[in-house]
Amino acid sequence: MPNKYTVILQPSGRRGEVAEGTSLRAAARELGVDIESICAENSTCGKCKVLVEEGTFERYGITSKRENLSRLSPEEAAYFARRPKLLATQGWQAGQVRLACQAKVYGDVLINVPEESRGNKQIVRKSATERIIEIKPSIRKYLVELTPPTLSNPKADWERLASGIATSIGLVRQGQANLPRAKDLTIDYACLQTLGTVLREAKWRVTVSVWQDKEVVRVEAGYSEHLFGAAIDIGTTTLALYLCNLENGEVVAAESEMNPQIVYGEDVMSRIQYTIANEDGLEKLHKAVIKTLNQLLARAANSAGISTDDILEATVVGNSTMHHLFLNLSPRHLGIAPFAPAIYRSVDIKAREFGLQINRSANVHVLPVIASFIGADTSGVLIAEEPHKQDENWLIIDIGTNAELVLGNKTRLICASTPTGPALEGAHIEHGMRAAPGAIERVEIDEKTFEARCKIIGEENWNTGKAKGICGSAIIDAAAELFRVGIVDTRGKFRHEGGMRRIRQGESGPEYVIAFAEETSIGRDIPITQQDVRQIQLAKGALFVAARALLDQFGLRAPDKILLAGGFGTYIDKTKAMLIGMIPDCPLENVYAVGNSAGDGARIALLNVDKRAEAMTVAARLTRYELPTDPAFQNQFMLAMNFPHMNEPFPHISHLIPNHKADPMAEKFSGGKK
Amino acid sequence: MPNKYTVILQPSGRRGEVAEGTSLRAAARELGVDIESICAENSTCGKCKVLVEEGTFERYGITSKRENLSRLSPEEAAYFARRPKLLATQGWQAGQVRLACQAKVYGDVLINVPEESRGNKQIVRKSATERIIEIKPSIRKYLVELTPPTLSNPKADWERLASGIATSIGLVRQGQANLPRAKDLTIDYACLQTLGTVLREAKWRVTVSVWQDKEVVRVEAGYSEHLFGAAIDIGTTTLALYLCNLENGEVVAAESEMNPQIVYGEDVMSRIQYTIANEDGLEKLHKAVIKTLNQLLARAANSAGISTDDILEATVVGNSTMHHLFLNLSPRHLGIAPFAPAIYRSVDIKAREFGLQINRSANVHVLPVIASFIGADTSGVLIAEEPHKQDENWLIIDIGTNAELVLGNKTRLICASTPTGPALEGAHIEHGMRAAPGAIERVEIDEKTFEARCKIIGEENWNTGKAKGICGSAIIDAAAELFRVGIVDTRGKFRHEGGMRRIRQGESGPEYVIAFAEETSIGRDIPITQQDVRQIQLAKGALFVAARALLDQFGLRAPDKILLAGGFGTYIDKTKAMLIGMIPDCPLENVYAVGNSAGDGARIALLNVDKRAEAMTVAARLTRYELPTDPAFQNQFMLAMNFPHMNEPFPHISHLIPNHKADPMAEKFSGGKK
Repeated sequence: MPNKYTVILQPSGRRGEVAEGTSLRAAARELGVDIESICAENSTCGKCKVLVEEGTFERYGITSKRENLSRLSPEEAAYFARRPKLLATQGWQAGQVRLACQAKVYGDVLINVPEESRGNKQIVRKSATERIIEIKPSIRKYLVELTPPTLSNPKADWERLASGIATSIGLVRQGQANLPRAKDLTIDYACLQTLGTVLREAKWRVTVSVWQDKEVVRVEAGYSEHLFGAAIDIGTTTLALYLCNLENGEVVAAESEMNPQIVYGEDVMSRIQYTIANEDGLEKLHKAVIKTLNQLLARAANSAGISTDDILEATVVGNSTMHHLFLNLSPRHLGIAPFAPAIYRSVDIKAREFGLQINRSANVHVLPVIASFIGADTSGVLIAEEPHKQDENWLIIDIGTNAELVLGNKTRLICASTPTGPALEGAHIEHGMRAAPGAIERVEIDEKTFEARCKIIGEENWNTGKAKGICGSAIIDAAAELFRVGIVDTRGKFRHEGGMRRIRQGESGPEYVIAFAEETSIGRDIPITQQDVRQIQLAKGALFVAARALLDQFGLRAPDKILLAGGFGTYIDKTKAMLIGMIPDCPLENVYAVGNSAGDGARIALLNVDKRAEAMTVAARLTRYELPTDPAFQNQFMLAMNFPHMNEPFPHISHLIPNHKADPMAEKFSGGKK
Repeated sequence: MPNKYTVILQPSGRRGEVAEGTSLRAAARELGVDIESICAENSTCGKCKVLVEEGTFERYGITSKRENLSRLSPEEAAYFARRPKLLATQGWQAGQVRLACQAKVYGDVLINVPEESRGNKQIVRKSATERIIEIKPSIRKYLVELTPPTLSNPKADWERLASGIATSIGLVRQGQANLPRAKDLTIDYACLQTLGTVLREAKWRVTVSVWQDKEVVRVEAGYSEHLFGAAIDIGTTTLALYLCNLENGEVVAAESEMNPQIVYGEDVMSRIQYTIANEDGLEKLHKAVIKTLNQLLARAANSAGISTDDILEATVVGNSTMHHLFLNLSPRHLGIAPFAPAIYRSVDIKAREFGLQINRSANVHVLPVIASFIGADTSGVLIAEEPHKQDENWLIIDIGTNAELVLGNKTRLICASTPTGPALEGAHIEHGMRAAPGAIERVEIDEKTFEARCKIIGEENWNTGKAKGICGSAIIDAAAELFRVGIVDTRGKFRHEGGMRRIRQGESGPEYVIAFAEETSIGRDIPITQQDVRQIQLAKGALFVAARALLDQFGLRAPDKILLAGGFGTYIDKTKAMLIGMIPDCPLENVYAVGNSAGDGARIALLNVDKRAEAMTVAARLTRYELPTDPAFQNQFMLAMNFPHMNEPFPHISHLIPNHKADPMAEKFSGGKK
């Protein structure tokens, strides 16, 4: 029996005895702490750096009488010699930092595993609840060093590499079950085409990227840590792209752009119609979105200082129509009863199949579709917010040109969709624009002077900078403020038509000037018009009745929590959203503005492969609720167009409603059911 | 317990008891006889037709007192009503023929299962041994009838179809293990793109083609039996294509063409060199072969009266260089020591990845490579000839521009390759041509008059038709005949330089005129020149020494059997081949000319998916033997250039050798080792 020594690992506090001569990395694994490695314990990657706290790190050190770890190996010494600044920048002492794959235990030691060296890295996502997302991408990198072929062993390149990969995976992931064998591995065809050249230029020392533990999608010369992916959110109005470092979850670049399909139709139905009416319609719409995504990818890669070749996977969310158009699948039957999508389940397709310009061998993972009007975007929302893990009833409203609503808990989930129009994304609004520098994102109106205060994207303070337009969140702000200070009434009609400098008669009716020409960069006034207010009423009315219909299915007056999601503008001001009656009344502390939740879902699916399986499972559990279309329901919609509602009480924001009791219309309908 | 009745099946003679009410198809399955079906027992495909021999087929019939089978079902009656000529043409009586999926057992019956209705169809391949090849293609067709989507069940098209397929597979293949479930099935992306349209045009009744029990590669409206595949043999000099009916194994069209890469180099080394010397060399060579294959595919489809879209799979063989060029993989390292191929294992790649114009969703299966100079063509030869199943030692020589030799039995197999040049394929020969109509395929020379008799491809009789040139088999014939009648001597040198009308001094030396201008369609004489004979000597010498080297490894004087394979010309005349010393001496009855064995291997792999796995297993077992390059070996080669050999005895054809004892050179070397 070999001697045994105690190893204590910080910060986890795990401890236990290991046999003499065990490497620190193996010891940590035995004690349940995973330490990173990519180089198959070759002293190359340095990912397994640990700090020796007790157990001496120099032959006659201070903290211990004898040397409890093996001495620095030549490979380890070489690693540190190549990085003279490492110790200085981290404040580590020479000899204190070791490579866990090399240092072996010959006595009791106390080891600190710094965050960067820990396996199972995590990111924290703040939503209605704070949640930890484990970094577990579909792709892992392995350094593989091969014996070059000889006349007596001229084994084929791929078989040689596959054996080497299996060996490296075995070393890096010792002790794990289901490690792939050489014969289980495959190589993407495009990757095979360059294999021979890369292996030889690299002198048989390469870093391979393995997708889903089975398919080699990249072979790079030498040692490479670069591992990037793109999360793509295809909105009807806006395309958003997050370029992520797949090792630590960091978003290294974010880009967005108007959806270029807008020229073919502003909403999904008109785009579906375009593909039906025009023989090349589908091709045009498909190519348009791919082209713009390629521009975003190139921009994001450029700003992150990488090549688009370094992007080894993409995940995609979008509503069903965007999903179909992205995949070059006809959306025709999404728009014609009985509204059947082409496919529900998530798909993995080579980027090159439809010209998405990332690495040629990269796979594109498109999240599952749930129903004809509940798309992959909702799958993204589900894995980002996790209503299926809650005891409480959550109502999630994902607002875009269409809104999707999910209500439920861990035992029951229902969903519905409703068209809201592009108003809340800044379209159909006189000076609406997407959330970009120069866009007004917050608006406040003084209730006495009716003067406006604005916050512009890109400016740190209020009332500074020049405005270009007004984005989604500020549109909700503006409507709520106009109502709160009494400029528009409960029916959305302008009351004050003059007398104050910002209220005036515009070309198409009364309007309120949020920014005068001299406060803008466009040299024109930016008003909110009577028409704009009407657009907001239509959108918020549609949202409200859909939410109410779902709550009725559960027999609920209000949900336990409301999550407001949407890629438009910055985060919605929840008080303002309730004040205009966009969401049902409930305690304001139970309302959460969670931002672009679908986009977050795409990012989460990119960073954690298990969440893709979860998306499939939850999508299959969701029950679709079809909103009624009868006159009674239409009447509900008319009532819901009022600020905040014609006859639902809004006790939690009633103190903000001007002259609430005095409104003659409110009196008239106060005998209503709710 | 239900009543049980005896069912006897002919011609297998299987019998047993089955429960009352069992369908004849289910009964047959219970008794171990597989009856075809494609329509999920829907009375649509008629593939399960059986003849009722005993057990009455009419209510008060002659052969039995009571009705032992259920009456004709309406669906069954409708099937026969749609085919009024069926009974007449087959000579069957009305009511005697039933659909086995519909007819149920209510008494003892004697049933005849005609060949066309039997599952596990077979073809017979005649080689050195007669062998039966089971028809078991990678693709199976299933008729699927779906319930159209409704507002209350708007399930996605793919999920709807996948469930339907799983159900149909279950019905068609009742009782089999490992049937795929709906969630295990996938659909090719290109196929998914047209799915919605096809399903609706077909009114939800479609025939799906499922590859490898997992991937849907085609969805056709209504009922379709069409199932075709292409077996492709890429030779250095000749491309051959066999278009096969995958249901019965029949070759419905065969096409061949010169390999267009010849303009870039006649042998593999010069083509490899071309890709090294020219940046676009690989692309040019790859595109050239794909372009010509597409022409062959179009021609074959046209002559078979089908569309190239009906071709749902292709299998490919070729030497390692042809394999790499076909797959657009650089062959550079095949030509540079240590000669490592890019990949050994077989690959399945979508035809569209490199523009092969068959169905867009079709997969291309390329057989495994064994070593840098032993390619996928040898894999084809192995599964066609099956030396790995033999007790005896077989020597297989596959002759092309390169020759591959395999020697061994079921316990040990070794292989080698040797460049033979294109002479035996008709190139490098003054009037050589490929085996096509107009080519002389057989030559005999009268030993007294020195007059020639020829057999031309496309003609039924000897000495009829007009010759265009001379193909591989006739080149061997000509050399052997010139030697046998004494026109050329043992060293290949012309002896008779005049005096006879067919022997004359040509432009470059002495020559023998096989066909005079008036016997040709080209208006010029077709001679065999001294140069031509020299080319044949080089080729046959290379073959002989390689064979001898392998035999020496086994310590054998001669193998038990010799198989001569090659796509050139028609079948080689084995006596002539031995007379010129192309193969070692052995009893002539042990020599078999097996034709294009590699091409047959491609066809066998196309028709039987199990043979693909066998190819992988056998390829892995083969030991590569590297021919020596030392001066001693070069000397062997010089000796082997003689007809039949400078110092090996050829007792089995010695009676054909003129003045054998008298040859002064033979005397000189008769003291040699062998």
